[in-house]
Amino acid sequence: MGEELILLDFLPSMFGARVRIALEEKGLSYEYREEELPNKKSPLLLEMNPVQKKIPVLIHNGKPICESFIIVQYIDEVWNHKTPILPSDPYAKAQARFWVDFIDKKMYAAASKITWRNNKEEVEEGKKELIENFKVLEGELGDKLYFGGDVFGFVDIALIGFSAWFDCYQTYGNLSMEDECPKLIPWVKRCLERESVSKSLAHPNKVHDIVVKLRKHIGLD
Amino acid sequence: MGEELILLDFLPSMFGARVRIALEEKGLSYEYREEELPNKKSPLLLEMNPVQKKIPVLIHNGKPICESFIIVQYIDEVWNHKTPILPSDPYAKAQARFWVDFIDKKMYAAASKITWRNNKEEVEEGKKELIENFKVLEGELGDKLYFGGDVFGFVDIALIGFSAWFDCYQTYGNLSMEDECPKLIPWVKRCLERESVSKSLAHPNKVHDIVVKLRKHIGLD
Repeated sequence: MGEELILLDFLPSMFGARVRIALEEKGLSYEYREEELPNKKSPLLLEMNPVQKKIPVLIHNGKPICESFIIVQYIDEVWNHKTPILPSDPYAKAQARFWVDFIDKKMYAAASKITWRNNKEEVEEGKKELIENFKVLEGELGDKLYFGGDVFGFVDIALIGFSAWFDCYQTYGNLSMEDECPKLIPWVKRCLERESVSKSLAHPNKVHDIVVKLRKHIGLD
Repeated sequence: MGEELILLDFLPSMFGARVRIALEEKGLSYEYREEELPNKKSPLLLEMNPVQKKIPVLIHNGKPICESFIIVQYIDEVWNHKTPILPSDPYAKAQARFWVDFIDKKMYAAASKITWRNNKEEVEEGKKELIENFKVLEGELGDKLYFGGDVFGFVDIALIGFSAWFDCYQTYGNLSMEDECPKLIPWVKRCLERESVSKSLAHPNKVHDIVVKLRKHIGLD
């Protein structure tokens, strides 16, 4: 079956990274199309995701799938013959979904207060929330290799993209990720040993450069 | 197989209603336990959902499942032999998940500005957002019987609980749901014809009474 896969994405995005990793895990070739965010959204992005108007969008044989946590599940369900991403057991699946939902509800909002604000109170609030949330996730990881146990999976894919932003959180939040989250750092290293991850994440320096530019652009620095 | 199902819930909750409907659709008996919200959270709720501390929580043979959209998927996956809730086709499933996610991201926040604020600007903003979002959903419903087509399913379950609050939106938002969303009203009536729905939703008068009390309690009226 001839499969056409196009990914509308933005390199530093931790949400885009989820889809890139999932596609790599399944060994799927795809056409990558970088959006010129935040200045411009391509007509194709607006056509394919008219409701949320956000990347990432995966276009599979002309049909769009939106929202990273939904796209990853879609990829796992369509190409279900290799490298499972979600566990097959319904309870383990519900647990994985719970943690991905926790990441979606809590992490980006907290992180944004650090990188995209310069009101001291808001930055401090963001820092407090971010560290608290990372600690909750550290507690869930415990002594396991990955969030799901011995196997790299859905929660790892959902969280690892944030690691490319750790330098930014450290710079703008004046914090040390290693001191705050000592258990998370070895997990990040373990994930980065996977080619699917190392190939998919933007380099932290690149993310940092983009953040420096964007902060100037929106008048924060 | 002896199944023990306990639902920690709060009657007016549109999120709790999703789980009640899904359990009814599958013909499952369960023990309903009402939380005394917003004043008190039971020790069992705090033990079973220590991270989000929110209802609904379904406890299946002692193990908790949290977040209504995850619980409904869990119920559908465990009791998969009857009355499917999500479509089996991965693309249709991704679409259903997208709309449930839209409801979760947009509807409650907008509705809360109407029912739980008395700052005029915020109420107006909530009203504008709520109507806009309902219109987007009306567009998605189109001329179909249900959101998924001819069969009652995931998106219907996710949205119908809001209908028990329409009276409150009308009262506090000074709007007419029938005028604003003429296509949604017949869909509500159609859903309410299903026993799983009519048995599960709080009566609008009951919701209204609770809102009146809670608004007094938090000093809005």
